[in-house]
Amino acid sequence: MNTDNIYEQSLDQNQANFAHLTPLSFLERSASVYPNRVSIIHGDTEYTWSQTYKRSCLLASALQKMGIGKGDTVSFMGANTPETFEAHFGVPMAGAVLNALNVRLDAKAIAFILEHAETKVLFTDKEYSDTIKAVLEIMSNKPVVIDIDDPYFKGGELVGEKNYEEFIAQGDDDYSCFQIEDEWQAISLNYTSGTTGDPKGVVFHHRGAYLNAISNVMCWNMTAHPIYLWTLPMFHCNGWCWPWSLAAVTGTSVCLRHVRDEAIFDAIKKHKVSHFCGAPVVLNTLINADDSLKQGIDHEISVMTAGAAPPAAVIAGMENMGFGVSHVYGLTETYGPCVVCAPQEEWSDLSVDDRAELLARQGVRAPLQDELMVADPETMLPVPKDGKTMGEIFMRGNLVMKGYLKNPKTTEACFKGGWFHSGDLAVWHEDGYTQIKDRSKDIIISGGENISSLEVESVLFKHPKILEAAVVASTDEKWGEVPCAFVSLKNGQELSADEIIAYCREELAGFKIPKKVVFGPIDKTSTGKVQKYLLREKADKVGYVVKK
Amino acid sequence: MNTDNIYEQSLDQNQANFAHLTPLSFLERSASVYPNRVSIIHGDTEYTWSQTYKRSCLLASALQKMGIGKGDTVSFMGANTPETFEAHFGVPMAGAVLNALNVRLDAKAIAFILEHAETKVLFTDKEYSDTIKAVLEIMSNKPVVIDIDDPYFKGGELVGEKNYEEFIAQGDDDYSCFQIEDEWQAISLNYTSGTTGDPKGVVFHHRGAYLNAISNVMCWNMTAHPIYLWTLPMFHCNGWCWPWSLAAVTGTSVCLRHVRDEAIFDAIKKHKVSHFCGAPVVLNTLINADDSLKQGIDHEISVMTAGAAPPAAVIAGMENMGFGVSHVYGLTETYGPCVVCAPQEEWSDLSVDDRAELLARQGVRAPLQDELMVADPETMLPVPKDGKTMGEIFMRGNLVMKGYLKNPKTTEACFKGGWFHSGDLAVWHEDGYTQIKDRSKDIIISGGENISSLEVESVLFKHPKILEAAVVASTDEKWGEVPCAFVSLKNGQELSADEIIAYCREELAGFKIPKKVVFGPIDKTSTGKVQKYLLREKADKVGYVVKK
Repeated sequence: MNTDNIYEQSLDQNQANFAHLTPLSFLERSASVYPNRVSIIHGDTEYTWSQTYKRSCLLASALQKMGIGKGDTVSFMGANTPETFEAHFGVPMAGAVLNALNVRLDAKAIAFILEHAETKVLFTDKEYSDTIKAVLEIMSNKPVVIDIDDPYFKGGELVGEKNYEEFIAQGDDDYSCFQIEDEWQAISLNYTSGTTGDPKGVVFHHRGAYLNAISNVMCWNMTAHPIYLWTLPMFHCNGWCWPWSLAAVTGTSVCLRHVRDEAIFDAIKKHKVSHFCGAPVVLNTLINADDSLKQGIDHEISVMTAGAAPPAAVIAGMENMGFGVSHVYGLTETYGPCVVCAPQEEWSDLSVDDRAELLARQGVRAPLQDELMVADPETMLPVPKDGKTMGEIFMRGNLVMKGYLKNPKTTEACFKGGWFHSGDLAVWHEDGYTQIKDRSKDIIISGGENISSLEVESVLFKHPKILEAAVVASTDEKWGEVPCAFVSLKNGQELSADEIIAYCREELAGFKIPKKVVFGPIDKTSTGKVQKYLLREKADKVGYVVKK
Repeated sequence: MNTDNIYEQSLDQNQANFAHLTPLSFLERSASVYPNRVSIIHGDTEYTWSQTYKRSCLLASALQKMGIGKGDTVSFMGANTPETFEAHFGVPMAGAVLNALNVRLDAKAIAFILEHAETKVLFTDKEYSDTIKAVLEIMSNKPVVIDIDDPYFKGGELVGEKNYEEFIAQGDDDYSCFQIEDEWQAISLNYTSGTTGDPKGVVFHHRGAYLNAISNVMCWNMTAHPIYLWTLPMFHCNGWCWPWSLAAVTGTSVCLRHVRDEAIFDAIKKHKVSHFCGAPVVLNTLINADDSLKQGIDHEISVMTAGAAPPAAVIAGMENMGFGVSHVYGLTETYGPCVVCAPQEEWSDLSVDDRAELLARQGVRAPLQDELMVADPETMLPVPKDGKTMGEIFMRGNLVMKGYLKNPKTTEACFKGGWFHSGDLAVWHEDGYTQIKDRSKDIIISGGENISSLEVESVLFKHPKILEAAVVASTDEKWGEVPCAFVSLKNGQELSADEIIAYCREELAGFKIPKKVVFGPIDKTSTGKVQKYLLREKADKVGYVVKK
């Protein structure tokens, strides 16, 4: 501190002029300014913001009464229901850390996470009781288990000590504290799906959650009181921070347990949904839904997509349905989306297809993203903005995680050189937009030439008979690796491997053409990410040009 | 630090995951993501965001070359032109503190400020050369003076060493740094107009400017790329932080040197202005403008008003013209607006007049305002939300200033009890909305009864023949104080003092009826605040019921 500086004399932080940044303040404001606005709709159940605040306080109070506090992990095996939403506020309000579990993981993976996170309390939805029973059998140091007994879900079992409603009823009625000690304090813990090896625990803090919640809102040009449909799982990077964003703009959440086309279109019509998020696979489902489902929508709908690079065909398909698409990009390590393909004024003059090509790129910094670059991972020097030179995407700033839990080595490695290493390979276009060419581990190196699996996939996606496609490297004696395409066709369509290869020949350089084609459904994670490591294993087992 | 806490082990801040909050990052992002969008329009001159970034960098670089840096004050006696806008970025980019001067102050007041702020460099627009010449004569320790030689302003003199364009031409062409050392660092210094005594220097910091810039955007439901007309002086609380907000949403600023009805309506039509701010006096000017000026506007316009409690009649008048009005409230000490009269859903069913009554209240916390209360200034206990009990408005959180420059005693007093003492007296309504009844020093105490001058004014404003009204206390032997009304009539209207008093008798309790009425223009500051201390002096000099 420079004491000659008149601006640093008797001008210190105090209770009146400084507050820690936390998304909990958004909940408190919505409850106080808009107490009677609907916060969440689940079947015939509706809560207002004052009720959601109250229920979150009760959850926090009940957790504190059982000794849960700062530094403790509370895990949620939850569906997209009010309980999981409330957990995003109630758990950190108690000072604890919310660990929302990927409900599609198997018992072994869940047990690993609970043990690694040192989970004290586990809340579980009936739907996942089979998994959780198996988890509890594996674990020696079992957490306290509380059931979420959703009246709208038939099936499953109650496996815990008591249910959620009984649990929060133990909380103090006048609990209203939402103070935190430090904005750098952890708010949540999200395990990356980890295509190989043990999952890593990504730690978010209050400051980052607050800022990303706002960045989301600005990024999507969202005004107050949106109606948001939960097609995206809340367990996925805390639903890309949307529970907190919705509290910031006092929006209404419409719950959705299972992502089915009919349920989505019904909710859109019934509740006048204005916004929803989803991986490209979800959008693809909607595009290919029965036309009768799409009738009767006469309001504006905005869709945010991420989680995998959306083929231009998917973006065009949504726009043709009249849905505005925002394409964003990010990783669990960056609180979800931190990069957006912000449309430029002149793009509106383009055809839908041409615009979709531009929108399929990952893009530029989201409003509150501090820094972004595509650089050589060795020298850390930015690559030229020529649309050709490959580099790795690096981010830095407030929308980057604290680090990986109990994993200092990997944390240090991913922050090497003062930037977060995304592992995604991209080019930087002349207009400043980044475009991912591949995950570093997904690139196919054939005869010394790099092949972007995404490039081959986007060609396949454009074929009118192809529903989905994924391309991976297959080991080859001569070339080292060759591209292998996994393809699923649209309902009732027929297409041979030879036809696909002939089609690719017109669109791609010879070395990029798939040497193998496998038909059938494509292995994906619950969040719609293609599981390329599984496909790679399969690819090595099949012969060349496998027909249907 | 609790070393048992797994969330505090090897999860520290580093270059990759932490950045200081500063609105300078908004400029850098707009320039990099939307380089060719128009940032500012001034007459026939247009700059893009990349040009504004470049010019701000040149300004910063030129300042640094002359030795200006952290802790130094740079003062601007500027109009609403590109130079003053650029100063909001270039000055803090050099690490220095921007002191935007109220151009209507007299030489003595300006000299006091420059000396108190220890200003190193003073930029001055030609329009104010007479004042600045007088200032320089008074000052013994003169700053370096640079002229702003606006080609669109005829008149005035050049009084400095060189002009702005020559000055920034000295900057390095490749300067691009916008890093700051700490988000708590001072960004600007604004002197409160100070109705009595020496003005106080309110210090803003980067963190607060960043957060209030965003809060503005959210508060107004502003989406990307607004067209913003500068009716509000940029010197007034840094234009309520709008230069920084506009950088956050990559908006276009339309400059306006003088607030005249014709110029405003012309700009609205020519540039399709979507947003502007102004004190109620500005809105009143527009409402009372010639009908011919109002023709030919067919797009939506949002108006934000603050700076004085707007009478409901003014809000209704704007809404009747088809302009949406947001009523906000704040003080220089709170970065401008931090409270908003956020409309509730059910208000849209009300008549314009009824809605205007509700909108005339100060309201609730702005989106990023941490805490707000109406409380007893002695006990600091909140008053009941009954719409009747008077208390003082208190704020706390990130949107409260660092403190007053070189004034530790007043700083300490205004932060007493861990809250910022606004000095405004208000009630808290049942619905959580605050309503100012008076500045503590403007309350009229007559025979032991408190009279809100605002209440009497809002009755007067409703009279169809009255253009403006202000009510102050006049000393009275019998009652201690009595209300004295200053009234100016609409063009061509006639009204006697007796008629006004008879009208008030129907609307107000007897003790609240003005005992004196003075006709003529009302003394106001350059920002439209009625100068009640001047009126109070006048009131004591006039007899009872003075006629026109």
